[in-house]
Parts: sequence; structure tokens; C-alpha cells
Amino acid sequence: MTAPLRIALAGLGTVGAGVIRLLEANGELIAARAGRPLQVVAVCARDRSKDRGIDLSPYAWEDDMTALAARDDVDAVVELVGGSDGPALALARNALNGGKQLVTANKAMIAHHGMELAGIAEAKGVALKYEAAVAGGIPVIKGIGEGAAANRIERIFGILNGTCNYILSEMEGSGADFADVLKDAQELGYAEADPTFDVEGVDAAHKLAILAALSFGTAVDFGAVDISGITMIRAADIAQADALGHVIRLVGIAEPQEQEGERRLFQRVAPVLVAKDHPLAAVDGPTNAVVAEGNFVGRLLFQGAGAGDGPTASAVVADLIDIARGTVSAPFSLPVSALQKVAPADPGSRISRAYMRFTVADRPGVLAEITAAMRDAGVSIESMIQHGHPEEDGDVLVAIVSHRGPESAVTAALATLEGSDSLSEPPLVMRVIG
Amino acid sequence: MTAPLRIALAGLGTVGAGVIRLLEANGELIAARAGRPLQVVAVCARDRSKDRGIDLSPYAWEDDMTALAARDDVDAVVELVGGSDGPALALARNALNGGKQLVTANKAMIAHHGMELAGIAEAKGVALKYEAAVAGGIPVIKGIGEGAAANRIERIFGILNGTCNYILSEMEGSGADFADVLKDAQELGYAEADPTFDVEGVDAAHKLAILAALSFGTAVDFGAVDISGITMIRAADIAQADALGHVIRLVGIAEPQEQEGERRLFQRVAPVLVAKDHPLAAVDGPTNAVVAEGNFVGRLLFQGAGAGDGPTASAVVADLIDIARGTVSAPFSLPVSALQKVAPADPGSRISRAYMRFTVADRPGVLAEITAAMRDAGVSIESMIQHGHPEEDGDVLVAIVSHRGPESAVTAALATLEGSDSLSEPPLVMRVIG
Repeated sequence: MTAPLRIALAGLGTVGAGVIRLLEANGELIAARAGRPLQVVAVCARDRSKDRGIDLSPYAWEDDMTALAARDDVDAVVELVGGSDGPALALARNALNGGKQLVTANKAMIAHHGMELAGIAEAKGVALKYEAAVAGGIPVIKGIGEGAAANRIERIFGILNGTCNYILSEMEGSGADFADVLKDAQELGYAEADPTFDVEGVDAAHKLAILAALSFGTAVDFGAVDISGITMIRAADIAQADALGHVIRLVGIAEPQEQEGERRLFQRVAPVLVAKDHPLAAVDGPTNAVVAEGNFVGRLLFQGAGAGDGPTASAVVADLIDIARGTVSAPFSLPVSALQKVAPADPGSRISRAYMRFTVADRPGVLAEITAAMRDAGVSIESMIQHGHPEEDGDVLVAIVSHRGPESAVTAALATLEGSDSLSEPPLVMRVIG
Repeated sequence: MTAPLRIALAGLGTVGAGVIRLLEANGELIAARAGRPLQVVAVCARDRSKDRGIDLSPYAWEDDMTALAARDDVDAVVELVGGSDGPALALARNALNGGKQLVTANKAMIAHHGMELAGIAEAKGVALKYEAAVAGGIPVIKGIGEGAAANRIERIFGILNGTCNYILSEMEGSGADFADVLKDAQELGYAEADPTFDVEGVDAAHKLAILAALSFGTAVDFGAVDISGITMIRAADIAQADALGHVIRLVGIAEPQEQEGERRLFQRVAPVLVAKDHPLAAVDGPTNAVVAEGNFVGRLLFQGAGAGDGPTASAVVADLIDIARGTVSAPFSLPVSALQKVAPADPGSRISRAYMRFTVADRPGVLAEITAAMRDAGVSIESMIQHGHPEEDGDVLVAIVSHRGPESAVTAALATLEGSDSLSEPPLVMRVIG
């Protein structure tokens, strides 16, 4: 057995502690599979005295992450600090520039700085690996970047945020409204104290931007992701979707599109209505699922736990095993110089059915105003349901499902209605898939 | 860009032709991802003159597979000849012994001779890769052997044969009997002219034995797989399962079990009743799905096309890309010497509900005889349904579902009934899962 892979671990939150526990529990098996032991030599975290339920005495303690990355006795650095910039980014740059292999679970950092970091890794001839950054324990970076590498990937989509999926599943099951379910989710540990990044769709967008670069050979372009969260979704929307044979899921989707003679990239995270017989409809609770469509392999589905210390640690250590085995490929499957910068696609020509929910004053003429706006924009209505009972505030909900048509028509119809006295709040629009 | 990976391709059936087509269609992208071109230099098949819809003129033709494997201008051999022994095995041995990398889609050969071939590959320091042998285009060998490598895998199960799944799905949809659906499947190309290996469960068992070795670090032991096929399943069983909220699927399952102080391995391929809300129940048509349960990652699901030229070619070429990238690990994740030879587990202590269907003579006392046998063996009956209408041959079907209990009790009850005049044919037993 050859020399151990010597690891420095920065960040000892739930995932960091999970990595330590995993290496302790499965260390012997992992050494046999990797051909050499995986040995944590040093750790670093904010608070040395905190009880994490693990024995840290075998590992050197560093108070300073710069010193951690600079240690001569370290081959690979694991970054579990979090945050797109600041200490995490400094550590990543230091580690790679110092010729260390880098493993990270940090989706925000890869979404914002993945290209720069991949460039350093390539120049230094070291690995930058981030399986744990996307879809928790599911080996989807490996599945797409290696398993489907023979294919031109034509589309990816999936459920990328376990918190939102848990909340939507619970709303389905209980009939409760968003705010109540969020509160329960926070108490149960399924949602963070500040859930903004999750419920606003930002976390899913980080993951989508990473998957898109890997899948399509494009430069990571987080800023171009069209993002909507789930905070506007009401119990009434869930009930309406159910009556239409659908469930609501926060779905990320990305696909290249030819527009005006060039290759562009469509990227969106938004709640959508998913037909109940669609594979994503069965994805309940904090589960993640990613679908990749390749031009030879067809549709591949990867599903599993999207978060949690065990699954995330599993992905972190899988990356370390690849490094120990010496089986590492380019961070985004292609050399950084080959990743194309492409413009965002205009979604206007995308064809789908649309679910539109209006909160309106309970008075005559409102429906006529809405339907006229639809007619004038060329939006053909498939069904319209007005709730008999006004909401607590006296408003009435009107749900419209359009026939298949271009997004631009729906956008035009809603633009006509913008600022109308009849609407108590901006309408909620969701696409219908499956 | 470095020198191309030079490939010899043996076997030009649908998959072989698919590999050629894939490399032509995606060659440039693959070269960029692999860091070097994948170049087929020579091919070999039985009939040179056959029209395969592809231009073979760029490739040297070899009539003899021994000569193909011996070519000096070849780095990697792709074996798509098929058959567990004979020419395929000779080619595989020749290629590996000659220091060539080997990629194969041959599940029968790996199930029977995988240990020997892995031993040669290890001794020669070359790759033996077989992603296409299990679950077609789904990267499940990579997903388990690398993606889940940090875990002790505790159980694997899945739908591993597209032909059987297609037939069972069609029986569900149409209410037709096995023989009629098989005939349709053959005409549509979903089943082979000789479907024995598929419908008797042998093909799924090949794949299960391979997955078990990879997952549990055990020696491949195809001979120990307990195999039942789907030929005995009638339309009435599908209807009965449906009434109970289940569908019938041919499922392979393997898990290590501690018995008598040692680690043993349970491996079974059999039709089972799957609850309709179980992930495998939604797997319809020629789709495959594999679930792996790891001690840190939890449950991972991999799903996609289990057969077909495009998906299978995708898996073959993914293996070639790994070889071109130089990112190759041990064939069964562990060194061959570390793969444990373990005894087959006795299934008697396994706890489950059981569905038992008896074909009985329509006369008094038959039900009393069956229920007495159940009582005497300690099998507790949850439900019993006797079809009112006799079958065409005057027999009557009786379906019993037991409460959860050990398999040994069911086995004992059926042993009591063996040879009874009341039964027109041996009973059909299926476990109930989910």
C-alpha cells in the first residue's frame, strides 16, 4: 500500500464533522478501494472548543486557514467553510496556487468563481472537485461529466433544492400555507434560520449554473439564470394544481438553444406544475433528482438525498478517493479555454402551457379585463377557475391555464395588466411540464 | 492534443454499429473531453459483406479476432461479440494478456469469468471496463464503484432486464397473458427470437452478480443467484396485484447477511409485488433502474435506458473516454485478491409478505387443504381471494397474501402441499416489497 493521501479539512460544521465520522467508520474499506489510506492531518474551524461529538485530538489544529493550506504535510485541502467569497475563496485560491488538490462542497463559490478556480487547477496540474456542491450525495457531477461523456447533452433539469421540495411536499400533504410550513421546516432542521437562498431559488440556481457548464461545455454563468422562488405559492395554488392532475416542484432547467444563428443558453429555476405521472412528481421531501438528456444515451435520472451530513460527506470523500486513485479529469469535463461564453437565450419563443394565478378584487369586470388581455396577446385559455370563497383579505383568486403557446404571449398579456386596479398583487406564473 | 487512443472493435451488431455511429457523430466533442481523439483503427465481425448502414472503409478489416487483439497499432480492444465463453472469452484473454485495455458489454462473460479477467488486467496493469454490461446506458458501475465508493454498500436492488419490464408493463396495460405479449415484444424488437435468458431471469442475474461483487467487495458468484423468471405470471396475477395496490416487476436484489458468525451473500432475481408508491413501480417499459443503499449516502437511484444501441454505445464509449483520460480504477473497485469468497446466505430467515397463487381443481376441500398447510407451517394469512370463474381448463386460481413472516415458513407450507392432487400445477410465490 502506497503513502496515504494527506488531507487538511477547513470547516467543522455538520458536513465537516460528517467527513471525519465517515473516514473513521469506513476508513479501512476506503483505503482498500483507494489503494492508500485517506488520512486527515490537520483541521481548522472558527471555534476550537465547540463540542462537535467527534474526537479532534488525532489532528493538528490550525487557527488560520492560510497556514492550513500552506502545510507541507498536506496533499489535498477540503473546503467546507461556505460562502461564495471571503475566507472560502481565499482558501481555495491559496490551496490551488500552492499545488494542493482541492475538494469543496461550496456551490456558491463554484457558481461565482468556478472558472477562475478551474483555471488555476489546470495551470497547476491539480484537481478541483465539487461533487458535494450539487445534489448532495448523488454522484451527478461524475454521472454527467464522466458517465455521459460520450454524449452531446441536450437538456438538463431537476429538483436541486431539498428545502423547497420538502416545503412543497408538506404543503401538498397538509394543505397549509407556505409560511406555516417553513416555520415547521426550520424547527425540524430542514430549513435554515435564514432560508432566503433556499426559498428564493438562489441555491438551486447555483447548482444549475454548475451543471449547465459541465453538461454543455459553456462557461459558468450564474448571473444569467432566470430565478423565481417559492415564497409566493399559496395552499390554493397547490390545490389548484392537484385538481389539474399536477404537483408543484421547484425545478431547474437548462438547455442550449440556437437563436439568431448562434448557440445560446437557457437557464431557469422556477416553480412549475409537474404532471403526476412525470418522474419528478414522485420526488418527495428533501430528495433531489437530476435528469440529463444525451443524444445517444437518452434520458438518465439520478436521484437521492440532496443534503444532510452523511450524504454530503459521502460525496466529499468520493472526490478524495478519486484523487487518491489518481483518477481525476478536468473540473468542467473540458479544458477551461474550451468552455464557450454564450449569451443567455431569450425565453420568449419557448412553448409551454402556463398556469397564471391572479389575486383580484371581488367586483364586476375583473374577469373581462383579464380575459381581454389574454385575447389581445394571443393567449388561448384552456381552463379558468375562480374560487367561490374570497380569501381572508376579501380578495379572490383566479387561476388560468393556457393552451400551449410562446412565453412571449403570456408576458405580453401580463404586461397589459400591470398596474391594473383590479389586481391586488402581481400575478404568479408557472409553466406546466410533463 | 496528445496521440489518439487507438481502438479495435470486435463485433458489429447493433451495439458495434452504434459505437461507430456515436464516434462519428460526437467525435470532436469526445476528443475535447478526453484530451485526445478516440480512433477506431480496425474492426472484426463474422460477415464482411453485410450492410450495417455505416461506412467501414476507414477501418482495417480483420477476419480473425486473434489477429485483431494482436495488432501493434491498437491500445484498446472493444469486445461486442457476446457469449460467456468461446470467441469472446478468447478475445478478452488475448487482449488483456497482450497488454491491451479491454472494454466489453458482455454481462455473461463478466458474470462467469470476471474474476479471472480482472486478475489478468491487474497483473498486466491495464483496464477491464464493462459499464455497458449492466443496465445499458446508465452509468451505474461508475456510480457505485466510484460515486458511492466512500460507503459500505448495504443493499442493492433494481430492475435489470428491459425485456421483462416491457412485457410486465404491457401485461399491466393490456390485460393480456404472457405468451401473447411476448409475441408482440418479439415483433417490435423488444425481445429476442430466443428470449430464454431474458424471461427466465438469467440476464438479470448476470447483471446482479456483477453489481454485487462491485458493491460488496465479494467475488463474483453468478452460480449462487437464486433465479426465477416471469414465464409463469398470468394476467390474473397482474390483476390480483393491482387489486392489492401493487404491480409486478422482475427485481434483482443482493445484500450481505451475517449468518452463523460469518458474512454471507444473498442474491436473488425474481418477480415481486411492488407497492404502487415505490420508486420501482413507476419504472415502465424497457427502462432499467438500480438502487444502491450506502451507510452514509442513504438510497441512490440510477434510472435510464437499459438496452438499445445508442445507450449501450454511450456506456462503451464512456469507458473508452476514461481510458483515454487515464482515469481507470480496479474492475471491481478493490484489488482482485481483496474480493472475498463468501457462502450464499440461507434465505429462510428473510422476513416479508408473500403472494402465493395456486391453480386448483374446482372441488370441495381444496381451500381447507391449503389453509391447513399454512396454519401448520405458521404462515399467517392476510388475505385470500378465489376467482369466481374457472380458467379455460376448468381450474380455479386462488391467491393468498401472507402477513410478514420468514420465508422458511412459506417454504414449509408449500412443501406440505407438493404433489397434492388438489394442485394442477406448482404454486407461484412472489415476495411483496415497498
